[in-house]
Amino acid sequence: MKRSNMDLIDPWGSIEIENYEKLFEEFGIQRMDGLVDKLPCKPSFIRRGIIFGHRDFERIVEAINKQQPFAVMSGIKPTGPLHIGTILTLREMIFFQKLGGVVFYCIADIEAYEDNGIPLEESEKIALDNVVDALALGLDPSRSYIYRQSKENDVKDLAIILARAVTLSTMEAIYGVRHMGLYMSALIQVGDILLPQLKRFGGPKPTLVPVGIDQDPHIRLCRDLAHKFKEKYGFILPSATYHKIIRGLDGSSKMSKRNPMSYFTLTEDVESITFKLKNAFTGGRPTAKEQRTLGGEPEKCPIFDLYKFFFVEDDDKLLETYWRCKTGDMLCGEDKAFAIEVVTSFIKEHQERRKAFIDKSREILNLD
Amino acid sequence: MKRSNMDLIDPWGSIEIENYEKLFEEFGIQRMDGLVDKLPCKPSFIRRGIIFGHRDFERIVEAINKQQPFAVMSGIKPTGPLHIGTILTLREMIFFQKLGGVVFYCIADIEAYEDNGIPLEESEKIALDNVVDALALGLDPSRSYIYRQSKENDVKDLAIILARAVTLSTMEAIYGVRHMGLYMSALIQVGDILLPQLKRFGGPKPTLVPVGIDQDPHIRLCRDLAHKFKEKYGFILPSATYHKIIRGLDGSSKMSKRNPMSYFTLTEDVESITFKLKNAFTGGRPTAKEQRTLGGEPEKCPIFDLYKFFFVEDDDKLLETYWRCKTGDMLCGEDKAFAIEVVTSFIKEHQERRKAFIDKSREILNLD
Repeated sequence: MKRSNMDLIDPWGSIEIENYEKLFEEFGIQRMDGLVDKLPCKPSFIRRGIIFGHRDFERIVEAINKQQPFAVMSGIKPTGPLHIGTILTLREMIFFQKLGGVVFYCIADIEAYEDNGIPLEESEKIALDNVVDALALGLDPSRSYIYRQSKENDVKDLAIILARAVTLSTMEAIYGVRHMGLYMSALIQVGDILLPQLKRFGGPKPTLVPVGIDQDPHIRLCRDLAHKFKEKYGFILPSATYHKIIRGLDGSSKMSKRNPMSYFTLTEDVESITFKLKNAFTGGRPTAKEQRTLGGEPEKCPIFDLYKFFFVEDDDKLLETYWRCKTGDMLCGEDKAFAIEVVTSFIKEHQERRKAFIDKSREILNLD
Repeated sequence: MKRSNMDLIDPWGSIEIENYEKLFEEFGIQRMDGLVDKLPCKPSFIRRGIIFGHRDFERIVEAINKQQPFAVMSGIKPTGPLHIGTILTLREMIFFQKLGGVVFYCIADIEAYEDNGIPLEESEKIALDNVVDALALGLDPSRSYIYRQSKENDVKDLAIILARAVTLSTMEAIYGVRHMGLYMSALIQVGDILLPQLKRFGGPKPTLVPVGIDQDPHIRLCRDLAHKFKEKYGFILPSATYHKIIRGLDGSSKMSKRNPMSYFTLTEDVESITFKLKNAFTGGRPTAKEQRTLGGEPEKCPIFDLYKFFFVEDDDKLLETYWRCKTGDMLCGEDKAFAIEVVTSFIKEHQERRKAFIDKSREILNLD
């Protein structure tokens, strides 16, 4: 694989992935065709192609339909409050948990330290906040193993054992020239993904890792190592589903901590969110007159993205919004008022729901 | 520092260090001058300049003389029975333990895995054997913390935390292009050296690491990281003493597992050791006649090295042997007979002493 291609997907960068087609051709990511219909139900992120590709997802579909054990593994880097983009992964986890999966949810505090310099003592508080969000969104803690990476010795030990099969050039090709801590954190993440297959958790099993497409390098590294250590551990190669990345509210390619106007968080003041939505980039035209004549461009619009990804579950309603914009029938002012209404009412409810999960979350993280 | 210089010292290689002078000039290793006389007593490895250099050893001398706490840290890579060369480090540890140091003795099973591919399950048995040797040589377990690297989470955590300050080029410069596991093991070894300074063991303290000169790259990396994390942990830069490397019995520059005729182990059959000594390279001349005329060359002789490093504690006796060889008064046959006698009687006693320490060693390593 050429370096230039590897560069295309960078989990720690913010490179826009303009052409999803390339991923199928050059990286061997598979299309969802045929598999979607085998699922017992189809939430909006599947119907709308937000999950657009996979690796070995058929293994998970089979486990679901035969009611065999499988794991759903994901995590969060505790660098701050969960932003709206991250709830997509959580919704996927909750969905597959309801279909029979056991969830492994990693608080990637080592990665938060290596990549962002956040000391473990500090990320502990952030982690609590993140876990409260996850439970308030519907993650069932009774069918979840939620853990802090830094406290999970099996994960570190897997990293140490698997590292022997990783060449330096593999690390450089995937992650570029970075410090040793980041490489270690990448290997520890491989340990996280394989953790559900250890004897302690019942041994080898299909494992789904629902990720943003920018995380594919981790998946490839992990599958490569799972293959190399198949004999020792009996690993089944982990499966992955890939979702598209939601645009920043400011029109940037990705919501980013570096740019607070590009996103809002689940615990943010409703006033602040309203301000950001009012000032968001849209697919509107320079003047109202032009927009009435030419119509808007919802396919370029972060506000429409919010509906499509999260806030409008009903497809007819989404289509209606799309066409009213496209035909110039609805201008951005009216649309934004609607966005502010649905978003802030969701956020208010969520913030209210959170209160019931604080004690449980402290308990899960063993905090005093 | 130029790469060509860094290559000079390679802890995993077997490059002969021909010119110790270079180490003082180019690597900043300090001479022992002035410090030796401040020690309350001088064992042969100090009197004879086998320990020939140091970094910040004055800090340890001060702690000894003021009876302040200090640690002595070393370890063994459990790849097989201890060979005779490794007992030098053990003797140094035992010596400094008697002068008040608390010993930290690491069974470097992670390194044995990364560097030699020995699974942790297997090195466990080897470790037992190594610990029995250490105790039989006189290590006092009541003033020692003996641990397996793979079981010591604080060590792994230090590696993870410190790794953030290590660039890839540092690793390449010190260790060359190796797999990720070896780099991780190098960082874990840094964790080992700093372990005695954690709060759990009473916090920052002078720490002496007695090593073969080939281990200096680890020391430099560790001191660099101790400095970088001084503020967070209060680390005192670890001190090191450097000893010369004993020649192989076959005349090679270093005793090496790859060449069984170059060394013997502490648990080897006396017959096998006798055979190796009989066939050892010496500083003798091609014919007896020549040797009587020209004299032997003890400074090139591995048998004389054995006396100097380990088996002749009395300086007068050593000098007598030296001159009898040098003047041609004693030929290699007579000398080897003497060597066989002192070595095998030491080995027999050691093997007898071992029996009393097996249970204690099992207990230390938590083996059933």
